[in-house]
Amino acid sequence: MKKLINDPAEVVDAALAGLAAAHPELRVDVKQRIVVRGDAPRPGKVGLVSGGGSGHEPLHGGFVGLGMLDAACPGEIFTSPVPDQIQAATAAVDGGAGVLHIVKNYTGDVMNFEMAAELAAAESGTEIRAVVVNDDVAVQDSLYTAGRRGVGATLILEKMAGAAAEQGRPLAEVARVAEAVNANSRSMGMALTSCTVPAVGHPTFELGEDEMEIGIGIHGEPGRQRVPLAPGRDVARLLLDPILADLPFAQGDRVLCFVNGLGGTPLIELYLMFDEIARMLGGHRIHIERSLVGPYVTSLEMAGCSVTLTRLDEELTALWDAPVRTPALRWGI
Amino acid sequence: MKKLINDPAEVVDAALAGLAAAHPELRVDVKQRIVVRGDAPRPGKVGLVSGGGSGHEPLHGGFVGLGMLDAACPGEIFTSPVPDQIQAATAAVDGGAGVLHIVKNYTGDVMNFEMAAELAAAESGTEIRAVVVNDDVAVQDSLYTAGRRGVGATLILEKMAGAAAEQGRPLAEVARVAEAVNANSRSMGMALTSCTVPAVGHPTFELGEDEMEIGIGIHGEPGRQRVPLAPGRDVARLLLDPILADLPFAQGDRVLCFVNGLGGTPLIELYLMFDEIARMLGGHRIHIERSLVGPYVTSLEMAGCSVTLTRLDEELTALWDAPVRTPALRWGI
Repeated sequence: MKKLINDPAEVVDAALAGLAAAHPELRVDVKQRIVVRGDAPRPGKVGLVSGGGSGHEPLHGGFVGLGMLDAACPGEIFTSPVPDQIQAATAAVDGGAGVLHIVKNYTGDVMNFEMAAELAAAESGTEIRAVVVNDDVAVQDSLYTAGRRGVGATLILEKMAGAAAEQGRPLAEVARVAEAVNANSRSMGMALTSCTVPAVGHPTFELGEDEMEIGIGIHGEPGRQRVPLAPGRDVARLLLDPILADLPFAQGDRVLCFVNGLGGTPLIELYLMFDEIARMLGGHRIHIERSLVGPYVTSLEMAGCSVTLTRLDEELTALWDAPVRTPALRWGI
Repeated sequence: MKKLINDPAEVVDAALAGLAAAHPELRVDVKQRIVVRGDAPRPGKVGLVSGGGSGHEPLHGGFVGLGMLDAACPGEIFTSPVPDQIQAATAAVDGGAGVLHIVKNYTGDVMNFEMAAELAAAESGTEIRAVVVNDDVAVQDSLYTAGRRGVGATLILEKMAGAAAEQGRPLAEVARVAEAVNANSRSMGMALTSCTVPAVGHPTFELGEDEMEIGIGIHGEPGRQRVPLAPGRDVARLLLDPILADLPFAQGDRVLCFVNGLGGTPLIELYLMFDEIARMLGGHRIHIERSLVGPYVTSLEMAGCSVTLTRLDEELTALWDAPVRTPALRWGI
């Protein structure tokens, strides 16, 4: 295992300490593992809390700040945050207008966010809504999930719902935006290599030198099929065809096209994949209205990529364009 | 070789096509391999041109836009751009106030930028200044370099000189800023693994499972020493001590601390390294005034990191904070 770490058991804490040192505008509680926007709670503003296993950075801690999340709760690597932690984050961002929990659809995450919501409601009367992200079209059920997994759409939802909350919209409105993003987003990913969880010390799965996994999950969960290596343009088709068929996307649609790196794939390959995806979308007369290319929802050092399409309307486009100031996504401010 | 590519000989062109598709605000000439800011040339503004081998993305194409570069010329992977290409980029951004060439110190780059400058001066009378970046303290001469190599400081210089040019400062002033950034910046990198150039098809160098290379170059050039794997905190010391001793940095200095990923190292490890570096700097009473963490000056999928420190004064800090709008670095607008 070749990693820039000290003790495999303390990687998450050390990285949080680094996040705190690099971003003094955030409040990072390393002990309780909570990353909070420096000016939280903001009276009258809906608070947005997300979280999940670590190892997907910059998701979620890198998306805390103006116009996006109010707090993030990172769990151990590839492990759900615990209810107490989520409850504390909820309390830290409760400005009296309610709190939205943004939860990727993994069984442990869903359960622990539900428990935290019950605790928070009972203890402080906070009004809490939850949106469960399940954009991955690869498989119906998976290693850690009943139903579809939540992947790339999570950051798009955090950005757009975050913008809605920043505008002062009430909880029901922010939740409606979040549900709209999830309903209009579809994703699929693929891996060329596995990743290694530090505390485990060996690769999560084995993949032959001439193989790739189509439909991989962001924790290395099995996908749809293991196939021989193929050119990027064939990979693009294997990812995009199921996405387009699923919503379904249609001629004339305007989309946000997000080509995401899983951690170990260089940007030059992601832009090459974007070119292939853009050509295919052009052939379907689907217009790329906004784009995002880079490693944003990762699986440690896994080589591979995922594609997320979000169907846009005027409202969602404006929410995407709204100012944001977080460690990993920033513009307009 | 596991890569998301089609033809190994066409990776650079395909990635440029993807850059064009994802960023319609740029003008990308895929054939001539020039990435130009959409509104260039801007009359009366000094034009900034950089370039170098591909494989270091987002450097340089990802830094083209308002407040940073006016044009970038990517060469083949790890290969200098050619004089004609640099001359064409220079012409494309010549707004009558002169052009600054930002050149990393590799023999081929320096020679080809010099030839391009002579061609451009002879043909159009453009006033051209060049700054050669040589911030890498690892080795004095290297595989492709006489003198020190140019690495992480390049993007900091492009940002700060770009801000100075955006303010309408004359060429001599923009060049002075660029020289000041280079003079006040020091870097060093290390690798856990090699990378593979697509057209070559096998790793650039071999590194044992229990080894790492300290002082590596961004093309895999040999560093100072090959040593057994060590914890992140030891790696931080091996990188930071030579940096601090070289300028030398002193107690009370205020710095921009840039922890850069070489491509295959996940963000969680880079933040862990930032924590170690920040602790050490604290011990030296050196204040981190600004920070940057992420894969910005890469070596394809190489696992490893580099550290760059730039000593700040009020002017450089303000230039760093000035608005920038490029694919890879954006704020304030």
